Amino acid sequence: MRYQLWAKVEYDGTDFFGFQVQARERTVQGEIERAIKAITGVETRVTGAGRTDRGVHAKGQIVGFDVEWRHDLADLQRALNATLAADVAILEIGLAPEGFHPRFSAVSRTYRYTLLDQSWRSPLARRIAWHVTPEPDVYRMAQASHCLVGTQDFATFGQPPQAAIGRNTIRTVLQAEFQEQGSFITFDIAANAFLYQMVRSIVGMLVLVGWGSISPEEFEALLQARERSSIKQVAPAHGLCLMQVNYDTSKGVSQ
Amino acid sequence: MRYQLWAKVEYDGTDFFGFQVQARERTVQGEIERAIKAITGVETRVTGAGRTDRGVHAKGQIVGFDVEWRHDLADLQRALNATLAADVAILEIGLAPEGFHPRFSAVSRTYRYTLLDQSWRSPLARRIAWHVTPEPDVYRMAQASHCLVGTQDFATFGQPPQAAIGRNTIRTVLQAEFQEQGSFITFDIAANAFLYQMVRSIVGMLVLVGWGSISPEEFEALLQARERSSIKQVAPAHGLCLMQVNYDTSKGVSQ
Repeated sequence: MRYQLWAKVEYDGTDFFGFQVQARERTVQGEIERAIKAITGVETRVTGAGRTDRGVHAKGQIVGFDVEWRHDLADLQRALNATLAADVAILEIGLAPEGFHPRFSAVSRTYRYTLLDQSWRSPLARRIAWHVTPEPDVYRMAQASHCLVGTQDFATFGQPPQAAIGRNTIRTVLQAEFQEQGSFITFDIAANAFLYQMVRSIVGMLVLVGWGSISPEEFEALLQARERSSIKQVAPAHGLCLMQVNYDTSKGVSQ
Repeated sequence: MRYQLWAKVEYDGTDFFGFQVQARERTVQGEIERAIKAITGVETRVTGAGRTDRGVHAKGQIVGFDVEWRHDLADLQRALNATLAADVAILEIGLAPEGFHPRFSAVSRTYRYTLLDQSWRSPLARRIAWHVTPEPDVYRMAQASHCLVGTQDFATFGQPPQAAIGRNTIRTVLQAEFQEQGSFITFDIAANAFLYQMVRSIVGMLVLVGWGSISPEEFEALLQARERSSIKQVAPAHGLCLMQVNYDTSKGVSQ
């Protein structure tokens, strides 16, 4: 039986050269395609909702693929998780609704950026959080981040990916929220879509606000100026995680 | 100037063969001794409060060592953290009080064991949590764990290490507590001292209680029987973390 499927994927991005297949490098897409081929014997193309960069993690990447399979979907998920390397796993799997495309059908994505705020580096958090020192002022960063919410031109913070929905740089940010949890500061940002390196550029500049190098008002002026060259600090990839991709639930995808 | 120091150490145990120096393997003690020698030029012996096994992590291991140093202690800490590998770091450093010994001066230790309770394995948590499936009943595990608190013979759950305070198997457990945090279940256990593999043996058997394989009453009977051979499941090392070592604060160590 031929299935069109979607799957929710978690991965530790540390040892991947990003999501998208490359000729010589180990990628998440390549790893999933390898596992499907090992199980079904057939070469299959996997499509992802977000092309996360090298080193970026995911707890809720959504992929789509077609597969020939005789058993039930739980068996397929079990077989895939047994075949995939330890740093990637399929958390959920389901039948894709008619016309579903992981990227083009998505209505929004949520990313989380994690900062580690303590005097000394943390061996146990080193793969998932950016150690920022001196201590940034979270209140100032939260204040500055308010201007991000809404539909506006984010040209300052990134370029449109080659195959973006539109080649323009206008995006709608739905949420931009800081939280403190012990030594960690998390920044959750949701938007209809993101520009290339947008979250990392925003976080890099917000940390400058947190350090007092620029004011929240200057941060807002940067956004309005639409000058990519004004980005003086891009946050490193390893603090970033694609948390969730949202679809119109009326169209039958639980994500 | 010659200093007698204590230091609080965090490490990701994944790529270490445990704390204690071995001839051919990479160990935490060996790594710290290497860093001290690189900085001061002098071979130094480092002593630890707990000899964590291969794969076990620490957020609050305490070590002691003597060092010849001309600058202040913050400079030494900075130099050590710059020299140490990414999977180990010095979080605090201080002058040891007269007669201080990291292990023998400690009045208690706290370990945390982390379980991951979800249907599928988690790439991002794979180094720090034991993925238990099927879902264990946390209430049953908590109920069973109550019998651990107090001064009693823990021979069922472990052997005394060779250089233990006493060669007997009587220990005082001060705390044994389960908590649920999202998909994680943490088990915090504090005792004056622990036997070899004691926490992992306790957790392994508590998970059997959580799965319904044995009852809380049978768990208590195991404790009382003092039969090491009754341990049918030892939890893996990677879920375990040495969180804290406690000293008599009146003796001048903030730990």
